[in-house]
Amino acid sequence: MALRDERVTLAHGGGGKAMRDLIEEVFTSVFNPPGMEDQARLSAAALAEPGARLAFTTDSFVVTPLEFPGGDIGKIAVCGTVNDLAVGGARPLWLSAAFIIEEGTEIALLRRIVATMAREAEAAGVRIVTGDTKVVGRGGCDGVFVTTSGVGVIAPGRDMGAARVRPGDVAIVNGVLGDHGATILVARGDLALSSEIESDCASLGHLMGAVIEAAPDARAARDLTRGGLASALNEIAQEAGCGVAIAEDALPLRPEVVGTCEILGLDPLYLANEGRIVIFVPEAQAEAALAAMKAHPEGAGAAIIGKAVAEHPGQVRMKTAFGGSRIVDMLVGEQLPRIC
Amino acid sequence: MALRDERVTLAHGGGGKAMRDLIEEVFTSVFNPPGMEDQARLSAAALAEPGARLAFTTDSFVVTPLEFPGGDIGKIAVCGTVNDLAVGGARPLWLSAAFIIEEGTEIALLRRIVATMAREAEAAGVRIVTGDTKVVGRGGCDGVFVTTSGVGVIAPGRDMGAARVRPGDVAIVNGVLGDHGATILVARGDLALSSEIESDCASLGHLMGAVIEAAPDARAARDLTRGGLASALNEIAQEAGCGVAIAEDALPLRPEVVGTCEILGLDPLYLANEGRIVIFVPEAQAEAALAAMKAHPEGAGAAIIGKAVAEHPGQVRMKTAFGGSRIVDMLVGEQLPRIC
Repeated sequence: MALRDERVTLAHGGGGKAMRDLIEEVFTSVFNPPGMEDQARLSAAALAEPGARLAFTTDSFVVTPLEFPGGDIGKIAVCGTVNDLAVGGARPLWLSAAFIIEEGTEIALLRRIVATMAREAEAAGVRIVTGDTKVVGRGGCDGVFVTTSGVGVIAPGRDMGAARVRPGDVAIVNGVLGDHGATILVARGDLALSSEIESDCASLGHLMGAVIEAAPDARAARDLTRGGLASALNEIAQEAGCGVAIAEDALPLRPEVVGTCEILGLDPLYLANEGRIVIFVPEAQAEAALAAMKAHPEGAGAAIIGKAVAEHPGQVRMKTAFGGSRIVDMLVGEQLPRIC
Repeated sequence: MALRDERVTLAHGGGGKAMRDLIEEVFTSVFNPPGMEDQARLSAAALAEPGARLAFTTDSFVVTPLEFPGGDIGKIAVCGTVNDLAVGGARPLWLSAAFIIEEGTEIALLRRIVATMAREAEAAGVRIVTGDTKVVGRGGCDGVFVTTSGVGVIAPGRDMGAARVRPGDVAIVNGVLGDHGATILVARGDLALSSEIESDCASLGHLMGAVIEAAPDARAARDLTRGGLASALNEIAQEAGCGVAIAEDALPLRPEVVGTCEILGLDPLYLANEGRIVIFVPEAQAEAALAAMKAHPEGAGAAIIGKAVAEHPGQVRMKTAFGGSRIVDMLVGEQLPRIC
């Protein structure tokens, strides 16, 4: 049956025919999961290898605006969860997608979001296998919220985690920092700024796979989402019990992002990214890891930004471009809400 | 560090220190997942048996009010996902929990919700192993939305699904219908009704396990959430390609629920439940399944309500208490939004 409505109504969340029509036509016909039941039933063969572990993660996405240069909430929802799995050393396999939709939302917008998710999932090599839709009345939420969960497999013997980082390990990022945060800031339109910056939103499962192959003793990786590079490095420093030293002039930063930050009094180290990670690898494998990243489209702008050190444990320090040194603390409040 | 705030602020979602404090103090210290990273890393041994399948499901919960007689949004969020797994024949193992929180929400309310979830997860024998929190500004959502996803294991050879239902199979429900829907209706307070009814919200993983042991050829089960018994039976009839015949006087209904429905012009067959399932079993195993249900606290009110028939394929018909027969169609619109 063709969906006749142009906008979502409360009936689309009621559990009856209207809901089934919406789910079939807008969601499952695009994601194509096996059957219409509430549950995916998946061969566990990928997990059967002795010593393999299952990785499981979840994230809700509430980004505003829902569509922005370089992506939309659907793209972030797939990339964010794929990346959460990937930075833990897992191969992402399956995603779930749960939608909370405000009454009155255009069906055409939903279709665009779903199409993006299907495309991004295919590119990332994952399948969206199960989902849910809830509808809330007008004002009950802001348009559309998407929660994705992901299941992946961690190969036997692979053990990545911040606690494994040791002094001397080299920190590498896969590209310029802050594009996503700057894009969202500008896209909100409150600031009367305009720019050509696009979100860096990307799935990094394939890139992480290549880096781990090149640097099999990679210690830990983090995606640089809320709180940006500064928060990720602080978390690693604290969990590893060592210091992190970075160099300002080694940070890959786009002049437009630096400019936007200067105008607004923001620090690009804290800007959110949706397609950027930092990875710590033993020094002997750093060049190989950097080369593997650079060979990958999502890592073309990769750079070594610093290293773990025995000094100032738990603290991140940056050698500034002027030769000084400053502490890079964790973000205290929030720099920009609803960034993802 | 003790959380000093009494209410959630945008900073609690910003990715920095405030967020970490909230997550550590309110969420992870209660759920106690392994480590603070974005990802759970779980032994896959439970899935390693040859032929075992992985079950994966997700649901967002937007119930209003957030707390009601017999439960709260946290209890529904755990039970709903446990039950989704259980009705597919899976043993629920792990849950994720993602929170979307409105700025200004009382931290004490969050703590109550989280405590309920931890308690319910323990009772259901599952672990909440990973999670996420996002904060939206005032008016960005209604208080708290919770999305849970669940992973379980389906034993080798177990294959439950609506398409397996055959004419002659017996339909059993595990207790009185509509308590949850009626409770939420009354709890909203819009109707100036009062009642002693409490939500039926319950995790049915253990009950399903006992029923499957007693009736190993159980064909299919459904939880009777949005759309109620009527919608679940219609879905089964359509997927199985057979008819379903039920008897009105066999339906376990509480007089208070029937009364509430009569006042409001609602039909209890469509009322949502959060601790009720229907299961179809071969006739030869029906008594054993019923006995197993009745032996379980969540199945004390279990009853055989009808059976699958070769007639009227795809359709549900009910023999009324007056001796007539009526078609029980799928819910067309919505009977009551934000029920779960």
